[in-house]
Amino acid sequence: MFFTLKKTDAKTKARLGVIRTFHGEIESPFFMPVGTRATVRTLSSEDLHQIGASIELSNTYHLYVRPGLDIIENAGGLHKFMNWNKPILTDSGGFQVFSLTKLRKITDDGVRFQSHVDGKQLFLSPEVVMHIQKVLGSDMVMPLDECAPYPSEKVAAAAAVKRTTDWAIRSKEAFIKTKMREAGQFNFGIIQGATYKHLREQSAREIINVGFDGYAIGGVSVGEPVKDMFETLDWVMPMMPGDSPRYFMGIGMPDQIVKAVGMGIDMFDTVLPTRYGRYGTAFTSVGRVNIHNGEFAKDLSPVDANCDCITCRNYTRSYIRHLFNVDEILGLRLLAYHNVHFYIKLMGRIREAIAQDRYAVFQHEFLSQYQSELLGDEHAKTV
Amino acid sequence: MFFTLKKTDAKTKARLGVIRTFHGEIESPFFMPVGTRATVRTLSSEDLHQIGASIELSNTYHLYVRPGLDIIENAGGLHKFMNWNKPILTDSGGFQVFSLTKLRKITDDGVRFQSHVDGKQLFLSPEVVMHIQKVLGSDMVMPLDECAPYPSEKVAAAAAVKRTTDWAIRSKEAFIKTKMREAGQFNFGIIQGATYKHLREQSAREIINVGFDGYAIGGVSVGEPVKDMFETLDWVMPMMPGDSPRYFMGIGMPDQIVKAVGMGIDMFDTVLPTRYGRYGTAFTSVGRVNIHNGEFAKDLSPVDANCDCITCRNYTRSYIRHLFNVDEILGLRLLAYHNVHFYIKLMGRIREAIAQDRYAVFQHEFLSQYQSELLGDEHAKTV
Repeated sequence: MFFTLKKTDAKTKARLGVIRTFHGEIESPFFMPVGTRATVRTLSSEDLHQIGASIELSNTYHLYVRPGLDIIENAGGLHKFMNWNKPILTDSGGFQVFSLTKLRKITDDGVRFQSHVDGKQLFLSPEVVMHIQKVLGSDMVMPLDECAPYPSEKVAAAAAVKRTTDWAIRSKEAFIKTKMREAGQFNFGIIQGATYKHLREQSAREIINVGFDGYAIGGVSVGEPVKDMFETLDWVMPMMPGDSPRYFMGIGMPDQIVKAVGMGIDMFDTVLPTRYGRYGTAFTSVGRVNIHNGEFAKDLSPVDANCDCITCRNYTRSYIRHLFNVDEILGLRLLAYHNVHFYIKLMGRIREAIAQDRYAVFQHEFLSQYQSELLGDEHAKTV
Repeated sequence: MFFTLKKTDAKTKARLGVIRTFHGEIESPFFMPVGTRATVRTLSSEDLHQIGASIELSNTYHLYVRPGLDIIENAGGLHKFMNWNKPILTDSGGFQVFSLTKLRKITDDGVRFQSHVDGKQLFLSPEVVMHIQKVLGSDMVMPLDECAPYPSEKVAAAAAVKRTTDWAIRSKEAFIKTKMREAGQFNFGIIQGATYKHLREQSAREIINVGFDGYAIGGVSVGEPVKDMFETLDWVMPMMPGDSPRYFMGIGMPDQIVKAVGMGIDMFDTVLPTRYGRYGTAFTSVGRVNIHNGEFAKDLSPVDANCDCITCRNYTRSYIRHLFNVDEILGLRLLAYHNVHFYIKLMGRIREAIAQDRYAVFQHEFLSQYQSELLGDEHAKTV
């Protein structure tokens, strides 16, 4: 049994579950730190274990470009290559092919494009993407999809939905034919449809009809207003099978995660904790804190007074601000560590609240506290 | 008792000793990882503890410029500011004032100069440098000296020696007057004299005559040939008091350290392990290894087969090479960690060899193995 639904919260749609893979179990809802290129920026796998991460996410497209499949195959798969023995989910790279590459030629067969690194001609098809992920040995694999940009004309969005479904069918066939399940892998379908209700519903219907181990809502957080992002959930969540995990791709801010869990989402990933950390912003229990701020020059308190991570136990805002001022890498690392820890601990608090049937109260408390930000947070306020 | 000489090797001048400070003991000979700006590049203080570092070195000039004295004073000193509870030695910044700053005006009183960061007018004198280090709370403090560049005319080098002695006298007076010993601090004298035998001898005589807790040989590793660097030791080491620690400033490559220990040096510092680590070069038992090298693309062995550090226990050359190829910070960190570990473990092996009266054999074995480098090492061969 890949996914087991353990319970649903009494007053919200929040769910408690567990995913079982060959590399261990993951309690849901959960957050996947993003290690696009087989490393979660600035953090070691020892750090991730220490933080309590139960899964890591990497990117098929990026790893295909660099280091290349032969090098990861030589290491015996992605787990061994990056020294991470817990579960890995690999995104297909559909989003990256459409956002990063130049001179791409999309046909029903697949996408021919130039590597964004060295201009080398590459080709990805649903079958190639499945093959790559088989070699990577990811515990959860994503199919190649067509992610329509924001904004998209209805005709273009409809074409992307059709292609995504066609490719989903071929992905599943390749998954079966190459015995990926037997190798301990589980496959997801991705729902597209941009900001159009009937397209989202059509995509959900078609993808669920193909049948996957889990379902992802893709093509979100691509620049659309936050309310549109959540409207997508209003449309598709009622259609989702209850016995499969639901993954809101690339989401999001802590308050967005809290809200999406209440709507029945189980899985999240985002580069925000590491990216914001590198830019000097910490996620804290009272909102975001920009460590560059002059008021922290002599602030001897930790980044987050309510946090027990190594960064907060050992280093002050004053010191970390200094590290950023002098461009010292340790600053990026300490904030990235704290931020990923913040996300992981948030998921633990979320699961605890669901287990105790008090998710509605938790959600209300979290959002009211989180929005009372130190430095103002227009993003949080739009949720 | 600040320094206790425990024994001298039977066949070489290598010495085993111990330095006692308010922040703990340090077995000598020892290496000080360099945390110029209150952080050893890419490493946390937890990393340094794990590696087994017993002391850290920071820079008075750099900390005076950024974050500024008030911010470190506010934290209760440098130890608390950077979360390092073991001993700290702070270099005076003499070298940096003469190498980094523009528009400097040197008088017998001190140096007036523009900050290399923001052009702000600053002034350092022997008394100011002592005051800064008193506030920093360094366990070992260095006096402001004048470091002649390489090459230097004899007249200029002689003037630098005279000024260095004058400033050493004033530094000691300030040290006594402001009761730094009572605050648990120990002071060093710095011997200058460029590449001139009689100036080196004059400087050593004068500085030793002033009288300090320890003696440093400065103005080395400033671009002169390696043989000139060691010739300086030939000249001054016979003059050094046996009951004080001897510090070869800014030295050096592993083989240079091994050689200098055999000549009676007790203390070392260099940015090489972290700097080379950031550039992709690892120090190993068989010499330097450049991780960028294509031959490592599929090399599943650790950076150094004879190393038990976290980097070598958990990550392959293939993976670390990938991290460098995609500019991931973890790569810099893993190699810096390994390199500092290499230096710290090397000092442990050095002390063990001296304790067993087999330093001559150790030195011979190390140099013959280390020089048989994987990738050639012109630097090692010149020693």
